[in-house]
Amino acid sequence: MSYALGIDVGGAKIAASVADSDGKIHHKIKVPTGNAVAQIIEAAHQAVAAASVSWDVITAAGVAIPGIYYAETGQVWAPNIPGWDHIPLRAELEAKLPARVVVDSDRAAYVLGEQWKGIAQGFPDVVFVAVGTGIGAGIITGGKLCRGAGDIAGAIGWFAVDPRKKEIYKQTGCLEAEAAGPAVARRAADLAARVPSRMLEMAGGCLTTITAEMVVEAARQNDEAARQALDQTVAYLAMGLANLVSLLNPQMVVLGGGLMQAGDLLLEPLRREVLEWAQPIAARQVRLELTRLGEDAGLLGAARLALEDHVSG
Amino acid sequence: MSYALGIDVGGAKIAASVADSDGKIHHKIKVPTGNAVAQIIEAAHQAVAAASVSWDVITAAGVAIPGIYYAETGQVWAPNIPGWDHIPLRAELEAKLPARVVVDSDRAAYVLGEQWKGIAQGFPDVVFVAVGTGIGAGIITGGKLCRGAGDIAGAIGWFAVDPRKKEIYKQTGCLEAEAAGPAVARRAADLAARVPSRMLEMAGGCLTTITAEMVVEAARQNDEAARQALDQTVAYLAMGLANLVSLLNPQMVVLGGGLMQAGDLLLEPLRREVLEWAQPIAARQVRLELTRLGEDAGLLGAARLALEDHVSG
Repeated sequence: MSYALGIDVGGAKIAASVADSDGKIHHKIKVPTGNAVAQIIEAAHQAVAAASVSWDVITAAGVAIPGIYYAETGQVWAPNIPGWDHIPLRAELEAKLPARVVVDSDRAAYVLGEQWKGIAQGFPDVVFVAVGTGIGAGIITGGKLCRGAGDIAGAIGWFAVDPRKKEIYKQTGCLEAEAAGPAVARRAADLAARVPSRMLEMAGGCLTTITAEMVVEAARQNDEAARQALDQTVAYLAMGLANLVSLLNPQMVVLGGGLMQAGDLLLEPLRREVLEWAQPIAARQVRLELTRLGEDAGLLGAARLALEDHVSG
Repeated sequence: MSYALGIDVGGAKIAASVADSDGKIHHKIKVPTGNAVAQIIEAAHQAVAAASVSWDVITAAGVAIPGIYYAETGQVWAPNIPGWDHIPLRAELEAKLPARVVVDSDRAAYVLGEQWKGIAQGFPDVVFVAVGTGIGAGIITGGKLCRGAGDIAGAIGWFAVDPRKKEIYKQTGCLEAEAAGPAVARRAADLAARVPSRMLEMAGGCLTTITAEMVVEAARQNDEAARQALDQTVAYLAMGLANLVSLLNPQMVVLGGGLMQAGDLLLEPLRREVLEWAQPIAARQVRLELTRLGEDAGLLGAARLALEDHVSG
């Protein structure tokens, strides 16, 4: 049995745990992100102590970061973490931790985690799609992580899915503007301004404080405006998923991220719409599923990166 | 020096030539497709004879087909060649030719050819996009051909790029319906019905006989309706190319196929529009270029498949 440390760095918190080579997670630790490098080191030591193992048995530490990892320079760029503007994270951590360190993007970690121990177990062609405040994808094709020439492959929030250009498309990308959490809230506010909706009350009478979470809650209570806001979002999101299917012909697309808390409402409509848009053979071959690992996918993927450095190619 | 036979099977003709390991083509042969298997064998023998080499020095024969090659079963499906509905082409050819045979899709051959000896030479992340009566892509990511779970990766004619569904999208895919050769002709006919255009005369007074070639010719003569038809097509095509750029972050996208005969008119507008739509870093990193190999890319790619069987891995 070999062990690796998996660390998933988010904008708000850092999760860490020791995982064994069977993919079992031993005692998950969470700390606030704060001064991120110091907190990673803190979380790493806590996780190793909590797992009751010694650093000697840790093969390596895998770190998933919410941004871009530049494989050639070892640098990291993560817009949501203050100061992480091309910092040599790998070198900094290796100087302070008694283990080899492997870094990659959270997208990469999530798809690796899903393929290792999640619902996509063993499939050589898998895409993980995170839909939250943003939209991004981790891609494994032919068994290998797809990184792209500049390590930023998977920026599907920028998929062009509507020729009627809007100003916002230039800031977030077209698909993200139409299908991420903020788009759900924006649509719901537009609708709630025109038809009666319980969302207005949920938001304390203020349209601009309607959140995607409120929309989902209202939709569960059959609020018509909320349902419509979700339907209109599904219409765009399905176009993006269909594009992944037609281009990559994967066995599975795994959906995660904040908006997929409403996955039970969204999955069937998404499947129907993907069948309408995608290349028909690829559309019939692909399985569209919700993550069952949730945030553990990131921890497992980070550990997997550490255990099998070569997987990251 | 080692040699391979490259054979590019099209709906109308079969091209064949011996290529050496430096990527030099020796005497290209063309025969009509007709009874395709018999004609491949005929073309193969002619090409070997024309190159003045013996079959003994031929490492293998690579065959590019206009359809799907199922790597697992060795079968071929090609809708434009009568009878090629899951035929065991590789086995049939190996039984009749004195060489090992390797088969793959023309998309795969074209991108391999461009990466081996074309403008994308040496790049590990390259997409070849053919825009003609249809639209399809060959993809190399991380140095490896992307095939997908069912060997049909690259079906970008099915990219969803306009949420306003049309009936035709279900037959050809959305992007192909809006951006392939027939779309150019259809748009031009619509426009020529409303404004004076020399295209009507070129088409013998009949709107429905306007072809994409006529549109391109008229556009070169500054015909306003023809220009507009191309502009509207570029708007959609750029969305599809931008989607490749955002998703795969390639060093280069190479454009070929019939419509790219008008590449000099289309390339700059396409580049501008891709910058508008794609993920900004990826959009600045990518080079969008026209093929300079033309149809030789298929022959070279087929030979490359034969020389380095493992590349197709």
